Order: sequence, then structure tokens, then C-alpha cells
Amino acid sequence: MKATGVVVEYNPFHNGHLHHLNETRKTSGADLVIACMSGHFLQRGEPALVSKWARTEMALSSGVDMVIELPYAFATQHAEVFARGAISLLNEIGCESFCFGSEDGDISSFENTVSLIRQQNREYNDSIKRYMNEGMSYPSALSHAFKDLQADKELIDLSKPNNILGYHYVEARNDIASDLHAYTISRESAGYHDEHFSSPSIASATSIRKSLFSQEREDGVIDQYIPHSTLCTLENYKETFGDYHRWENYWALLQYKILSSSPTRLRDIYEIEEGIEYRMIESAKAALSFSDFMGMLKTKRYTWTRLQRMCLHILTNTTKEEMIKQHSTPSYIRLLGMNPKGQAFLNARKKVLNLPLISKLSSADQQAISLDIKASEVYSLGLPSPSARKQLLQQEWSQPPIISK
Amino acid sequence: MKATGVVVEYNPFHNGHLHHLNETRKTSGADLVIACMSGHFLQRGEPALVSKWARTEMALSSGVDMVIELPYAFATQHAEVFARGAISLLNEIGCESFCFGSEDGDISSFENTVSLIRQQNREYNDSIKRYMNEGMSYPSALSHAFKDLQADKELIDLSKPNNILGYHYVEARNDIASDLHAYTISRESAGYHDEHFSSPSIASATSIRKSLFSQEREDGVIDQYIPHSTLCTLENYKETFGDYHRWENYWALLQYKILSSSPTRLRDIYEIEEGIEYRMIESAKAALSFSDFMGMLKTKRYTWTRLQRMCLHILTNTTKEEMIKQHSTPSYIRLLGMNPKGQAFLNARKKVLNLPLISKLSSADQQAISLDIKASEVYSLGLPSPSARKQLLQQEWSQPPIISK
Repeated sequence: MKATGVVVEYNPFHNGHLHHLNETRKTSGADLVIACMSGHFLQRGEPALVSKWARTEMALSSGVDMVIELPYAFATQHAEVFARGAISLLNEIGCESFCFGSEDGDISSFENTVSLIRQQNREYNDSIKRYMNEGMSYPSALSHAFKDLQADKELIDLSKPNNILGYHYVEARNDIASDLHAYTISRESAGYHDEHFSSPSIASATSIRKSLFSQEREDGVIDQYIPHSTLCTLENYKETFGDYHRWENYWALLQYKILSSSPTRLRDIYEIEEGIEYRMIESAKAALSFSDFMGMLKTKRYTWTRLQRMCLHILTNTTKEEMIKQHSTPSYIRLLGMNPKGQAFLNARKKVLNLPLISKLSSADQQAISLDIKASEVYSLGLPSPSARKQLLQQEWSQPPIISK
Repeated sequence: MKATGVVVEYNPFHNGHLHHLNETRKTSGADLVIACMSGHFLQRGEPALVSKWARTEMALSSGVDMVIELPYAFATQHAEVFARGAISLLNEIGCESFCFGSEDGDISSFENTVSLIRQQNREYNDSIKRYMNEGMSYPSALSHAFKDLQADKELIDLSKPNNILGYHYVEARNDIASDLHAYTISRESAGYHDEHFSSPSIASATSIRKSLFSQEREDGVIDQYIPHSTLCTLENYKETFGDYHRWENYWALLQYKILSSSPTRLRDIYEIEEGIEYRMIESAKAALSFSDFMGMLKTKRYTWTRLQRMCLHILTNTTKEEMIKQHSTPSYIRLLGMNPKGQAFLNARKKVLNLPLISKLSSADQQAISLDIKASEVYSLGLPSPSARKQLLQQEWSQPPIISK
């Protein structure tokens, strides 16, 4: 049995993801698809709309054969670390290939770009530094430095978000998993950040979330963009736990954490530097909501995503010291769910896995997985009622992998 | 002008306090009464029902001539430190005497008891340790050790809460303010912890708070126990800020703080020791409310008050390191309010004060007063709406002393 891998967040699972899944199967010729999915907190520094368990259900219902978790220490990081964690896990679980969606859609342009930047590495890094010293954010500096490179082959456009991720997937593959075959398919119809619906059946996760949170949402408006099973899971989640998760639910906790911490202590938090701790303390005193707070923090120097990730690490109390202790690739594989095909694959692979496989949190090495535990504890506090919080936390401790038919 | 001092919390101000005030004036023969009042958090490790500003208003309306704040580092401590802070401040502001309510009501019994314990100090401490090793809480051990002492003079009953405080006032006076004259008056009618109304006009603050929080409260039922001005201030506070403050309002924050902290980090918090951090973490996962949590923590070894103070220091993130840095007596006098008589007294005293007088937080030495600032920031987070929180925090920063007519 051949497996191919995808790196996903499914926040929530929608028709664009379904399209990617079907194309991945076709393009790779694999027998099954394994998704490496972020846990409760995502790459943009946000809580996932619904828990990893609900998102695993969505994935399995729509044909993913196995879901494994990308740990917090990788899932909530800039593209390079995020990609290294995900590609390493897909390799360790036994995939022969992986397939990502990109704006470019041509894998040889990715290969060319990765080789070129490796060759001209010093010039490239110098020019990134120069642009940042001029006051640019890291992504802008990167994109400008990239344009300065001399190339004679087809390159990707490194200002597009999915191309950036793809670039790092291919780079990570070259570094740590050279046997893994890379595929890319063109993302259809919906831009990454689009807030409005445009295509008849594909919409960005951003616009779907926006619609879910909107008070005036008409029944049925998102049905055309997500599989029916996703809709059922979303509705069931809201009924069981009382709400979806979003940053505003955690604002009181973040504000409290910032106001009760000294600048020195805030500086112990991962990614907090350059004196932003002082601006955070002042803004936390004045802000009335999370978006208010972010508005106060935002400058040209920091991207929204970078600021959100800082906020997230403060919220989960993740220190520089804790992050430094992490290995450069994940040291365990946490299994969230699978179907019979995934089970068969796993049974064949189990004895040759190099990493410990975690099926249930309560029987895992608590020390190794401590960041994920803390993240789940904090994530559960975003629910409105104490009993819902307790229920979600208990699920995290006792839930075995979800087995679908 | 002669001033006498009282040590108070006024949570809220009631007829028993009014009685104490009138008797204090009579007994001491002083021209004015100065109250040293706890700030936003109280000796039993609880948030005050309403802010220090509202409680200052109550005090001034009922005839207190000046209110100064007992800083967090003293207000939220066991009786010995609490008393030392308060007596030191009353001495520094220029009182000639102080007067406390007690179950005993006879000052010479207090003097006898303090001398006797000083004389038999070693035996007394040894026997406290012995009783604690047998599993008693500190107050029980203290009361048992006390009964073992040999005395030939009239002593106080050291198992009564106000006698314990009074004992420490007299002890602190002997140590740091020997010119200060001590008076005591007998507390009338209501026991310290009584939850039910018994006397026709005097009730404990506990029963008044209980009635204020009760859903089925009939209008008018507490009117007979508190001055009309107190009632107006309470109603006005609730209307302006949306709620009174109580531990349950801070439960989500406390739970978050405990769940997001490592045991090591919790052990950095003042008063957290003996491994209770592990019990706290386990209980915080399971508890649905603050009272639920406290019920899980409570054992014979720890008094409710001691546990509440631990929770409070966790909530305000007050570390052992921060507390060790504090001087043994307050290093500033924060003025909360006064009437014209208080103003006249202060004008005469101003030039001879040994400690800096803080009239407005924004112009104070922020470092010296940092624990009080943090306490106020956290206190404001117990209000239901973001705008109310911000309003209270702004008041804390910009409010000059309240001047009453």
C-alpha cells in the first residue's frame, strides 16, 4: 500500500479541501491519503474553530484515511519550522510522497527556486536583512530579496502564501526526507484570505468562518461550500460545547496574563522581543477587545500573523526555554483518527516506526508532549460554560483515535 | 489636633463599624479618626465587594476623617504582617493612638498576653510546632499552645478572630511605635463570621454580603444594618460597573493561570509550598467553580483563609521574590480620601512626614507601588464588561484623593 501525505488545518474542512484531496489521490497514484493536521492552535496564531477531534471527524468523513497531529511546537510557527515538522511526520509515518496546493501549481518551479536560493544563500540573506533594516516586515523583505536574485529557470512567485509554504515543504524534503516525492496542484478559485464568496462551490476557509460567526447568517448560505458532513459536525459541536472558538473568547485571559506579568516575565515568552512587551502592557490596559488590542499593536514592522503568534505564546505561556528544548523535528506521532484502510496501513508500519506512536494522551510520556497538553487545556477555556470546558478537556485526555467506517 | 487610628476593611461599611467609630472617638478623646483600609484585596484573601474608592466614600460619609490604604503586601497577609503594616502607617501619618474592636474589650488583658508570650516565647513556639506536626492548622496550633502557657494575670481568649488581630496590633505597637496609645472596645452583637442576621441593627459584613449576592433578596432587608449612604454607594457601584466583585468572577482567570503554569512556576508564587501546587493543578482541571475548587483543596492542614490567600497570590502573580523585596513596614502612604478636618490635619503634618505621600498613582514611584498597581489591574478584570474594566482601571490611575464636605 502506498500512502501520500497532505499538510492541513481544516478550519473547517470545505469543498476546496475535497478538491485537493481528490487531485492528490489522482496525481500521486497513492492508495491512501494521510493528513498531518495542526492541533488546537493554527499557524496564523489562532485557535481552531472547533477541536482537533471534530476536525478529524470532518477529514475522515470526506475520505482522508488517517489523521496525525502536527504538535504545537511546529504548528504555531513561521513557515520554515511548520513545514519541517509536517514533512518530517509524513515521512516518519511512512508516506512515499506528499502533495500540496499552491498558486503556482508546477513542482519544477518549486525545485528550481529552492536550488537557486540555496546557491545564492548569502546574497539572499544579506538582502533580506537590508530590507528589514529599512523597516519592512519579514515577508515583504523576503519577497523583495527574492526579486533581486538572478535566475535562468522558471521560478515561483514567492509573495503568494501557499507558494511560500510549498517552498518550505520542498526545502524541508530536501533536508530531511530526500526519498519523499513532492507533488503540487494548483489551488482553484478561492484566494487564501478572501473574505467573500466568489466561486459557485469553492470558498476560502476565512469566508466560511466569517459567515459562521456572522449574526445575520441566513440558513444554508455556506452549505454549497462545505460537505454536508462538515456542516453536521460544526452544528453538533456548537450544540455540544456551546460555541466555536475564536480569539475574542480568549481575550479576557490574554489581557489578564499580560496585565499580571512583568515586562521581564513577558520577555521569557517565545517570540517576544525588541521591547514589544511594553507596547503590549500599555495596549492591554486600554483595549476593549482582542481586535482592538491587535489594532493598537499593529505596525508596518510586524505582520498580523506574527503578532497573533506572539499573543498565542503568551496565552499558552510558552517560553523561549521550553521551545529551545524541542527537537528540530517532532519526537512523537500522535494519531487522531483513521478508517479501515488507514488501520491496515498502520498495522503494517507499526513495527518499523522510529518514533513513539501516541494513541491516547493519558498513556503517553507527559513530559515530551507537555506543550500540547498545555495548549489543549488553554484551548478548552475558550468555551462559555465550565461544564463544556471540562468535557473538552476530558475528551483530550481519554479520547482514543477516532475510527471511521 | 489629635488623631486616633482604626484598621478597617469596610466590606461594606455597616452599623457595627459606625458604632466602633463613635466609641473610638469617645474612648480616645481624639479630634479626628484616620482609617487605614485594605485596598482591593482583603486579609482573608478575597476581592473587596466594591473598589477602594467606593469604600472610601462610604467611610467619609459616615464620619471617618481620612482614609489611607494598607498596601497589598500587608493587606493580604496573616495577622502579624497585616498588623505591623497597619500600625506602622497609623504611626507614620501622625496618630497619637489607635483603637480596635475585640471580643475581649479590655486593653490590659491584651498587654498582659503580649508580655507573657514574649517572656515564654521559646516554649510557646516549640509547642506551636509540635501541634502543627500533629496535623493542626496554624491557628488551632496557636490557640492550643496558648492554653498551655502559665499565667497569673488576666489574658485574652486567643481563639477569637478579633482578639488575634488585636494581639498583633499591640505587639506591633510595642515593636515599632511605642508612643502610640492602644485602646480596645468590645464588639457588639454580631460575630465575625455570622451568616445570619440576629441583632436589630448590627449584622456582620459576611451576612450583609451574603444578602447582597442572594438572588431572592427582598428590597430593604439590609437597610436596617447599614447606613443609608452605604446603600447608595453600593447601588451606584453596581449600576456603574455592572456587578460587585467576588471570587467567582475571577475563577476563569485563576483556572487559566493554574492550568497554564508549570508546577515550578507555581512554586515561585508567594505562600505556595509543601507540594500544594500539584493538588491545585489537578483540582483546577476538574473544578467547575471557585467554591468547587476550594472544596477540593480544603484539608485539616490548611485553613480556608490560607488557601484563599494562596489563590489570590496566584491570581495576582505575586512571587516570593517580589514579597521578599518588600520592606518590613510600608514605604509610602497612599491617601484615598479625607474631609476638611482631615485636610487640616494633613496640612499641619505634611512637612514632617517620613514617608512619601501618594495622592495620585500616575505621579507616584511606579516601582515602589508595583504590587498595588498589579492588584488593581487584576481586580478590575472581575467586572463583567470590557468598558467597565477599563473605567475602573482608569479611575485607579487618575483619581485624586476623594474630598468630602
